[in-house]
Amino acid sequence: MSDNTFGKLFRVTTWGESHGPAIGCVIDGCPPGLKLDPAMLANDIDRRKTGKSRHTSQRKEADQVQVLSGVFEGVTTGTPISLLIENTDARSRDYSEIARQFRPGHADYTYWHKYGIRDYRGGGRSSARETTMRVAAGAIAKQYLAEKYGVEIRGYLQQIGPHVLAPKSIETANDNPFFCPDPSRVAELESFMDQLRKSGDSVGAAVVAEATSVPVGLGEPVYGKLDGDLAAAMMSINAVKGVEVGAGFDSVVQHGTEHRDEMTPSGFQSNHAGGVLGGISTGQTVRVRVAFKPTSSLRIPCESIDVDGKPIEVVTKGRHDPCVGIRATPIVEAMLALVLMDQVLRHRAQNLDVPELPGRIPAGLE
Amino acid sequence: MSDNTFGKLFRVTTWGESHGPAIGCVIDGCPPGLKLDPAMLANDIDRRKTGKSRHTSQRKEADQVQVLSGVFEGVTTGTPISLLIENTDARSRDYSEIARQFRPGHADYTYWHKYGIRDYRGGGRSSARETTMRVAAGAIAKQYLAEKYGVEIRGYLQQIGPHVLAPKSIETANDNPFFCPDPSRVAELESFMDQLRKSGDSVGAAVVAEATSVPVGLGEPVYGKLDGDLAAAMMSINAVKGVEVGAGFDSVVQHGTEHRDEMTPSGFQSNHAGGVLGGISTGQTVRVRVAFKPTSSLRIPCESIDVDGKPIEVVTKGRHDPCVGIRATPIVEAMLALVLMDQVLRHRAQNLDVPELPGRIPAGLE
Amino acid sequence: MSDNTFGKLFRVTTWGESHGPAIGCVIDGCPPGLKLDPAMLANDIDRRKTGKSRHTSQRKEADQVQVLSGVFEGVTTGTPISLLIENTDARSRDYSEIARQFRPGHADYTYWHKYGIRDYRGGGRSSARETTMRVAAGAIAKQYLAEKYGVEIRGYLQQIGPHVLAPKSIETANDNPFFCPDPSRVAELESFMDQLRKSGDSVGAAVVAEATSVPVGLGEPVYGKLDGDLAAAMMSINAVKGVEVGAGFDSVVQHGTEHRDEMTPSGFQSNHAGGVLGGISTGQTVRVRVAFKPTSSLRIPCESIDVDGKPIEVVTKGRHDPCVGIRATPIVEAMLALVLMDQVLRHRAQNLDVPELPGRIPAGLE
Amino acid sequence: MSDNTFGKLFRVTTWGESHGPAIGCVIDGCPPGLKLDPAMLANDIDRRKTGKSRHTSQRKEADQVQVLSGVFEGVTTGTPISLLIENTDARSRDYSEIARQFRPGHADYTYWHKYGIRDYRGGGRSSARETTMRVAAGAIAKQYLAEKYGVEIRGYLQQIGPHVLAPKSIETANDNPFFCPDPSRVAELESFMDQLRKSGDSVGAAVVAEATSVPVGLGEPVYGKLDGDLAAAMMSINAVKGVEVGAGFDSVVQHGTEHRDEMTPSGFQSNHAGGVLGGISTGQTVRVRVAFKPTSSLRIPCESIDVDGKPIEVVTKGRHDPCVGIRATPIVEAMLALVLMDQVLRHRAQNLDVPELPGRIPAGLE
Repeated sequence: MSDNTFGKLFRVTTWGESHGPAIGCVIDGCPPGLKLDPAMLANDIDRRKTGKSRHTSQRKEADQVQVLSGVFEGVTTGTPISLLIENTDARSRDYSEIARQFRPGHADYTYWHKYGIRDYRGGGRSSARETTMRVAAGAIAKQYLAEKYGVEIRGYLQQIGPHVLAPKSIETANDNPFFCPDPSRVAELESFMDQLRKSGDSVGAAVVAEATSVPVGLGEPVYGKLDGDLAAAMMSINAVKGVEVGAGFDSVVQHGTEHRDEMTPSGFQSNHAGGVLGGISTGQTVRVRVAFKPTSSLRIPCESIDVDGKPIEVVTKGRHDPCVGIRATPIVEAMLALVLMDQVLRHRAQNLDVPELPGRIPAGLE
Repeated sequence: MSDNTFGKLFRVTTWGESHGPAIGCVIDGCPPGLKLDPAMLANDIDRRKTGKSRHTSQRKEADQVQVLSGVFEGVTTGTPISLLIENTDARSRDYSEIARQFRPGHADYTYWHKYGIRDYRGGGRSSARETTMRVAAGAIAKQYLAEKYGVEIRGYLQQIGPHVLAPKSIETANDNPFFCPDPSRVAELESFMDQLRKSGDSVGAAVVAEATSVPVGLGEPVYGKLDGDLAAAMMSINAVKGVEVGAGFDSVVQHGTEHRDEMTPSGFQSNHAGGVLGGISTGQTVRVRVAFKPTSSLRIPCESIDVDGKPIEVVTKGRHDPCVGIRATPIVEAMLALVLMDQVLRHRAQNLDVPELPGRIPAGLE
Repeated sequence: MSDNTFGKLFRVTTWGESHGPAIGCVIDGCPPGLKLDPAMLANDIDRRKTGKSRHTSQRKEADQVQVLSGVFEGVTTGTPISLLIENTDARSRDYSEIARQFRPGHADYTYWHKYGIRDYRGGGRSSARETTMRVAAGAIAKQYLAEKYGVEIRGYLQQIGPHVLAPKSIETANDNPFFCPDPSRVAELESFMDQLRKSGDSVGAAVVAEATSVPVGLGEPVYGKLDGDLAAAMMSINAVKGVEVGAGFDSVVQHGTEHRDEMTPSGFQSNHAGGVLGGISTGQTVRVRVAFKPTSSLRIPCESIDVDGKPIEVVTKGRHDPCVGIRATPIVEAMLALVLMDQVLRHRAQNLDVPELPGRIPAGLE
Repeated sequence: MSDNTFGKLFRVTTWGESHGPAIGCVIDGCPPGLKLDPAMLANDIDRRKTGKSRHTSQRKEADQVQVLSGVFEGVTTGTPISLLIENTDARSRDYSEIARQFRPGHADYTYWHKYGIRDYRGGGRSSARETTMRVAAGAIAKQYLAEKYGVEIRGYLQQIGPHVLAPKSIETANDNPFFCPDPSRVAELESFMDQLRKSGDSVGAAVVAEATSVPVGLGEPVYGKLDGDLAAAMMSINAVKGVEVGAGFDSVVQHGTEHRDEMTPSGFQSNHAGGVLGGISTGQTVRVRVAFKPTSSLRIPCESIDVDGKPIEVVTKGRHDPCVGIRATPIVEAMLALVLMDQVLRHRAQNLDVPELPGRIPAGLE
């Protein structure tokens, strides 16, 4: 089979290649009656764009979203929403010489042997350009979640190479090209990136996203757990190699007395769980951390093979990000939004009759 | 909705509560003609059992698997395979007093508010007892993968609390109660666990599983990627808080020149990818690492609330594991097997016509 | 793939062979909080039983349903409900000689060439015994639909061979072995069936099922339409060859002025639509008619082939129904209930926010 | 949920409203390496077009298909194929006055109460214009099935009102505007339709489609049976009220000795089964018959209600087909192709290892 659809009840099917005429998605299952805010959609698309600073790829796409169906007089109708963005700055000539080459760390070799054919222009379907549509669909999910439940989703760059960034001021993360949540560290990152770019090398990064005001009860045990869905969603993003919820790998060295989040009538006493217990949201902040590998497209040569298995040297020329994690924050946020949106619909399908029971406690300490 | 089914084409639906009459699963989609080896099935079930050493819960279940359908004269027929295990050592009296209590770190609070009702006996559906059926289904997947593709799946305890265990001798991992891959460290672990048990506390752990001889080409971009499925599968296991593929979170500090696995005609020069590029298997060893949180069921008291939101003190009495990671190795292996099995069927559905192209390289350096 | 699961949000996975140790199903997605009525469950199971009159197969099964999970203190918990019925009157010796034979009109030949193996005992998986579990699951759906929405589901034998039966008194359909809705015709049917049985031949039948008080709005355009789901559900029943909704094939000769059901504030003026417009329920009675072919298991010899393709003569001995349509009414009802139940959950997942608009009209004339 | 996706492994997601800027679909799961024939695609699209004779709606669309992704240098790559057709002849002014009206026999009332909003222009999403994309996707499926298995799919108008049309010469069905399979009857149909159009009324029709050279073994018991999928596929087409496979409703009056298709080494002796036994293809011609209701859009006035439930008189003005069945043949063929295509992929996923067993017999008598 093939699987270009995310979600079960709020389903996003993306299509398109990096250097094809357009990319797009179809969102099926959006509740009717949502007044779409085009500015919000455009804003999130803009946040993940390339070419806005010297620290990302210099490809410059207008990224104008066309809404082709599912919206009538500005309001969703419950029928499929088709979104389309034309590719306007694809320079296929940059890639022509790699038609017969496999770039290490890329999907070239695996697509080739899986499908027997590949659109090599700009990575084809495996390009991160696909994530534009995730951001678009995620923006709609964010809007619904905010309106109906007051859910707020935000993200930030938590680490880049050796630089660990504390969330001192998450609300400023959108004010710099790195989504750095600590304004005092931005200059340091600029300098780090400039040096990196000059070296021709790349580096990994970690991004955190969190959702506040998530209602208790989202998540479907046992194979549709909220954290299981989050893990799948995040790992499906290009270049992701690891996912943590709450304490994540720190749990390995914790004791139970430390990890278990005690409860009092005034709320939870900590949030090592990351807002999820038994696969179901607790009402605390849902928090996920995602590891991005360093870009493999480098102008520093490396050993590789061609389509015949013969040894070659590969040097990547095109326009690439020295750290894909830099632009990843809106994508991670979008996937978090899509997971929550889907789980909201799934939850109410089965559990609509469940009355709100007494004894709910607030989020408490985070 | 509810989601107790794992997989898309090799689908495992599990059912049953910890203290109900039985647990079971239905496997739908198993290829016909597979001669089931009952000993292999029993062996994996036995590996995850409680009560085999002083380091795990003392619940003792016979765990005899009944095969109720889908197998005729020892061979799978392609119809659903129904497996059932009776619960024989459930002691519900141990749990009666917690009917109105929520245990911190457990799914009690979330099930209650999601469903408005819960089977509190032994954790009900949220009990790790459910994983027995994953191991049973995984054993069938392992057998198919081994026979048809020579895939071998193995796992080990990679870390417990501060003790990091190098895979010096993975084949000995089954010879000790910890699945420790280094026989020289077993005594140290015994002593560590004895001390922990006496303290009444618990600790986290990390488990690694890997699959060798995985054919190149498994994995469905972009939302059914092999690593995406692995992440979902692992995060769906009770107590898991993090998943890494290949270099995982170490990628964050790596440079591209280090991370990208260079290729030569004699094979890959490293395996930071963990056997997956662009969501598709490369032919290298698929390697995943999973973080388990420390058990929350402790005899050390803690603050909590009851069903009315009133403050209480909780002390857990029943029979519990001081480190759930200890018995988790067969479960992680099983989920790896189930993911690969499902992806094998998915791959050949779409790509059967693709000829084996020249230029495939061996796994190379790991 | 294989597909033994019915439904998307109220999912019923059945398993088991006619002559295996047991049959069963797992119901995933049932709303929590439903107080199950065991008598209602037993009653429906009993209605489809064989061996209750001389007009059906003489196989006598106790058909005692065991509830193994998902129900706590008589109430559904939202976790999977596992139901199991032991096979107690399977006489496999009756079938041993057909191990190498293909019975015309049966699934023997197709299973053999699809799977390369078949459990030939009593039809194995292709036996109508599987429908017992549909009835069991359907009984739970009926109970939910009745409690929450007042939906009532009922069915009757509408035709058997040349005998067309008008629904003069549907409530008496359960009082005779044929589900005949006209008591004045029962003697005639008895005589018809006695004669048929003596002749050794079999005959086809048509069954009607209808649901009243269905809320307007159920059905998911365009590939999950209510009538599309009904068609799939009914055609999946053994021996079914045709499905009609509302006017069905009579529509072919109707004019638009006749067929279109005019609307007035006091209700629809007719119900040629069968309660569905554009794939969505109108609020009128949902009505479906289903054609059953005559049983192919006859003691009258016929030409066939064996597993090597050699010509043979086949005479069926076992215990069979001379008209499978006779016992089909509870099965058709069950499938109608399962479709509605699933659509109820699907509808509220997406459309919960839609307010009840003014201008709804009553069902009106039927 | 919402459901605008057809198929499980060959998945077609359609989107678009009758009077929106465009309609389109995304095909996910198409095998790679298929050389698409644009002429074949255009030909099928052209066959279902309106405006080609005086007997259908006079809306004239160019219906130029744009291929936006999934095809590289004319060959499918295995990634999602995005197809788009612009709407160029939508005249929304025709429909403005029915914004507050519900047309009997249409989906107006049901969409309104399901979604709380509707795009009333030209029927919005419930318009038969959606079926254009089914035909486009079906053309790709047809091409694959023909190339790989030699499957041929063809259809014809079998009945219109009282006129029953024998398949005397199916290959001529494309030569007349009715898909009439008997050239000697075309003049009669022209006259019938002219008279009908003048009367302002409409009429129903029945369409037959069949597939030859279907390999034995397609179909997934028990809820993904080949005939079950066909039933769902056909009933999902606008205006369809009934589906038959093989003998269909004629089975009701047949005896088993007549219906069961006897087998000899030279083939089946008849085909009452319609090429399906136990839900699995037999290797005979798969034959399905579909009932279309008469169009409800008439210039003859009728009683109805408005959005407030007030009584009104409705007269439909726009451009409509007096018999939707006339243009339905390519749509029924397309759905048959999509079902077979999906089942081909599903079958090989599970049963690839099954060797071709001896003893297969030819299709025989039809």
